[in-house]
Amino acid sequence: MAHWKKALVIANGPLPSRRRIAGWLDEETLIVCADGGANRARARALIPHLVIGDLDSITPGTAAALAGVETIRVEDQENTDLEKVLDYLLAHGITAAVVLGATGRRPDHTLANFSILAKYHSRLDLLFVDSWCRMEIIDRPVQLDLAPGTTLSMLPLGRCEGVTTGGLAYPLVHQVLEPGVRESISNRVSKSPVEISLTVGKLLLFIVDKK
Amino acid sequence: MAHWKKALVIANGPLPSRRRIAGWLDEETLIVCADGGANRARARALIPHLVIGDLDSITPGTAAALAGVETIRVEDQENTDLEKVLDYLLAHGITAAVVLGATGRRPDHTLANFSILAKYHSRLDLLFVDSWCRMEIIDRPVQLDLAPGTTLSMLPLGRCEGVTTGGLAYPLVHQVLEPGVRESISNRVSKSPVEISLTVGKLLLFIVDKK
Repeated sequence: MAHWKKALVIANGPLPSRRRIAGWLDEETLIVCADGGANRARARALIPHLVIGDLDSITPGTAAALAGVETIRVEDQENTDLEKVLDYLLAHGITAAVVLGATGRRPDHTLANFSILAKYHSRLDLLFVDSWCRMEIIDRPVQLDLAPGTTLSMLPLGRCEGVTTGGLAYPLVHQVLEPGVRESISNRVSKSPVEISLTVGKLLLFIVDKK
Repeated sequence: MAHWKKALVIANGPLPSRRRIAGWLDEETLIVCADGGANRARARALIPHLVIGDLDSITPGTAAALAGVETIRVEDQENTDLEKVLDYLLAHGITAAVVLGATGRRPDHTLANFSILAKYHSRLDLLFVDSWCRMEIIDRPVQLDLAPGTTLSMLPLGRCEGVTTGGLAYPLVHQVLEPGVRESISNRVSKSPVEISLTVGKLLLFIVDKK
């Protein structure tokens, strides 16, 4: 696996357009489907290098179409197919991944996948992408190169303290953000680079590409 | 407004099927659209009693089709169209509402709407419904009448302590649930009534109707 530097992971939710997916593909990218994600990949005419999961969600049509693709069956009721894929990446020295299809289907799964993002982000350079947004966890000071006018939301996963921003139209200065109490929705980049820092907690950052 | 006992609120996300919506309609139900929710209602051939919002998302076609419907323009950048509707309900003594279309579009909006659910649930008997799930906030002991076999998830909005359940296949006993740390996904009703209690925090409960 040594030549793969990063991975594109296809989970079992709706995928972005082929054009948007193409932006995340290059020759150094391992394409891995999490179980039923294989059906989604097939619908986008995308052939993965690998399928991982308990393999209970792959349709017969997908199984036939991907008969030549390596599949790894992992039985473990304690973690999800997406976690099985991320564990595999970590075990094989791949430390950056873009995950498609992690949002937009069952809303409890979307929220659970955000929890997975929070659980793995310290070990993997991890980004979720869907038709609307790019999503990542922020828990230390970051500088982001974003075009002025870009819409951006910050949702706290649990209580976040000391949230301070630079380069945003509605700046935050030592704010507390907390689920069900206060969050920052549809803020706007006024000046690049955007700076975000916080002292306690994990922020889920959404960079909005389509409104 | 005195004869309305409850409300069906149409937000601007994808709506469930007409058949599923019909289950939430009766003659005591005020139908209110939050701004662009009017376009969604029209696509389901549903005529609201009222449209509320800053009215910047209604298409000309919808405006024409709903020309006879009372509309209330509320300008306030500090809260969303959904909050404007819920404030209106509270101001008019309506204390129960089902909200459709609050999930499944921009994922930051979905999360922000869950925050709104948490902000309003103590004043409104509030339920979100989409094609997959019914969603509500639990922050005190509840008993729920649910058919054995029903799938159910509990996602903490912030840290939840002392979470204890009865009637579930995977019981929780004085558990801590926390975003990005531990949650309860796809648990199953083993025996009705289901009992859920917690000592600290707010749980977002998902009753899954379609997998």
